[in-house]
Amino acid sequence: MSAVASAETEHLSFAELVELLQRIFERHGTCAQVAAILAENCATAQRDGAHSHGVFRVPGYLSTLASGWVDGQAVPTVEDLASGFVGVDAHNGFAQPALHAARPLLVSKARSAGIAVLAIRNSHHFAALWPDVEPFAREGLVALSVVNSMTCVVPHGGQKPLFGTNPIAFAAPCAGSEPIVFDMATSAMAHGDVQIAARQGHAVPPGTGVDRLGLPTTDPKAILDGGALLPFGEHKGSALSMMVELLAAALTGGNFSFEFDWSQHPGAKTPWTGQLIIVIDPSKSAGATFAERSGTLVEKMKTVGVTRLSGERRYAERAKALEAGVALGRMELEQLRQLAG
Amino acid sequence: MSAVASAETEHLSFAELVELLQRIFERHGTCAQVAAILAENCATAQRDGAHSHGVFRVPGYLSTLASGWVDGQAVPTVEDLASGFVGVDAHNGFAQPALHAARPLLVSKARSAGIAVLAIRNSHHFAALWPDVEPFAREGLVALSVVNSMTCVVPHGGQKPLFGTNPIAFAAPCAGSEPIVFDMATSAMAHGDVQIAARQGHAVPPGTGVDRLGLPTTDPKAILDGGALLPFGEHKGSALSMMVELLAAALTGGNFSFEFDWSQHPGAKTPWTGQLIIVIDPSKSAGATFAERSGTLVEKMKTVGVTRLSGERRYAERAKALEAGVALGRMELEQLRQLAG
Repeated sequence: MSAVASAETEHLSFAELVELLQRIFERHGTCAQVAAILAENCATAQRDGAHSHGVFRVPGYLSTLASGWVDGQAVPTVEDLASGFVGVDAHNGFAQPALHAARPLLVSKARSAGIAVLAIRNSHHFAALWPDVEPFAREGLVALSVVNSMTCVVPHGGQKPLFGTNPIAFAAPCAGSEPIVFDMATSAMAHGDVQIAARQGHAVPPGTGVDRLGLPTTDPKAILDGGALLPFGEHKGSALSMMVELLAAALTGGNFSFEFDWSQHPGAKTPWTGQLIIVIDPSKSAGATFAERSGTLVEKMKTVGVTRLSGERRYAERAKALEAGVALGRMELEQLRQLAG
Repeated sequence: MSAVASAETEHLSFAELVELLQRIFERHGTCAQVAAILAENCATAQRDGAHSHGVFRVPGYLSTLASGWVDGQAVPTVEDLASGFVGVDAHNGFAQPALHAARPLLVSKARSAGIAVLAIRNSHHFAALWPDVEPFAREGLVALSVVNSMTCVVPHGGQKPLFGTNPIAFAAPCAGSEPIVFDMATSAMAHGDVQIAARQGHAVPPGTGVDRLGLPTTDPKAILDGGALLPFGEHKGSALSMMVELLAAALTGGNFSFEFDWSQHPGAKTPWTGQLIIVIDPSKSAGATFAERSGTLVEKMKTVGVTRLSGERRYAERAKALEAGVALGRMELEQLRQLAG
């Protein structure tokens, strides 16, 4: 799904896009460090064709900053809680700077203990989850992350929304190819994709959500306007979504998706919750190297006819963008330049 | 789904059932220690109404032992690999005795490091996964486990089976109620439930599997007889199943679901793979106690209309069985007594 599939596109180098976004964030209330991290994150999603988390998100970031809901200057506090446990209080800032601050300690603990966990609380996550885990796999580590979000998913067997879209992301090194990375909402569709469908006037598949009366609908506007999403895979996806609430909120000390009240902050879009990341050093275990073994699995998957592996579409888009630059709509780019001043 | 829903039932106390099963396993080739662990595991499933993993499994255990495929006398070797990492070589024995042997070290590491991982390899898992994780939650810990199995699931986008049913189980303490526990096959249906449907002559829901030609079917016999299962939730369940292969096999040093060859062991039923268990001590993190927070989530789920929480059906069956004994069909019980000699 491309938000920029028209002749009216322009190409920026990745570095140019990062620099442009950084100027925007800094001009709208973040410190330089936070701006740099958010800009890289947002440009990465745009570059890799993940448009629902690319520059499409900029207006949401800015209206949130303008509302006073998130602190764009927050300096996270990293807590060394045990030999395998790192905590971070994001102090009402974004989750990515909190991860950035805690990352060296987390990796060091994972390499020493064989496994380590990072519990981020009091944080706002408004981005894709795969950019958080992919870098661990590039260092030979296995990573699993969950983040809860905001009430918009009806638990299986329930009548009203309670859970967030609550994604699960996983990354693992793979010999002979890019890391295996997936990032899946535990809702039938990611919230950003529903927003894009609404903007483009596309219907969404049956089973995606319900309208404000709780009735099934394929109209993305009806889902966004007082309706709600459904979990993927019925009771199983719903159980996974519950697990994400427990790990990302109960375990970190963050808010559940239903606990924060942003009604006094019109324009606020970022869920104020928590995030958990588990990192494993597979070199501690027995047998052949993990990356060789995951390479074996991938080869075998191809022999049974699997043609598109997790993350491959993003890597293909990334390769194109490294060659030709990151594509942006002219109108979109013009708006970004205006925002950058 | 009850395998014993007839007037022809008899009730044994849980201890009597464990003792009967223990005699059966010991008489058919396991040592006393392994027999005790398998008997308790199998009786627990029967008691809790999880009939696809109860005494229904006994013939499969015995034909596997008779075939020489599994070593019922194996003594697992526990390896202290790092401050958060325990390995076990099950030496071609069952996974449950391996978990039993490594459990004290795993719990001690989790309490000290905040998180620890157990990687079991060279093991056979032929049981439900929830009995492996529930006890951790009773000790105030959060546990996540995955086990791969045997080729019977077609990856999303593929043409032939490759993955196992590859379940994911999760357990967490909950103030004011029993632990929150789920155990879900990443296939559309668990293999044992397909076997029960075939035995009882019931159709399975559309989307469960394909026949030997790869065509969709609702006939459980067609799925078992050269056909295959599908993942739950299309590409998402398939990605989770792949993750289970990576964690339970690549990370532990065990076999992938497609790697073992039991053709020289007619009667063998137990997948020779691996199992991973991650245990987290939530007391390390900030804020209110984890169990209080999960209690808050459960209460909120009830207010939006969720009437059956993960694990509740099992707890209800358990309570009934503690009162009236564990129900078994008379024919079934007679067969068990004959097997016990």
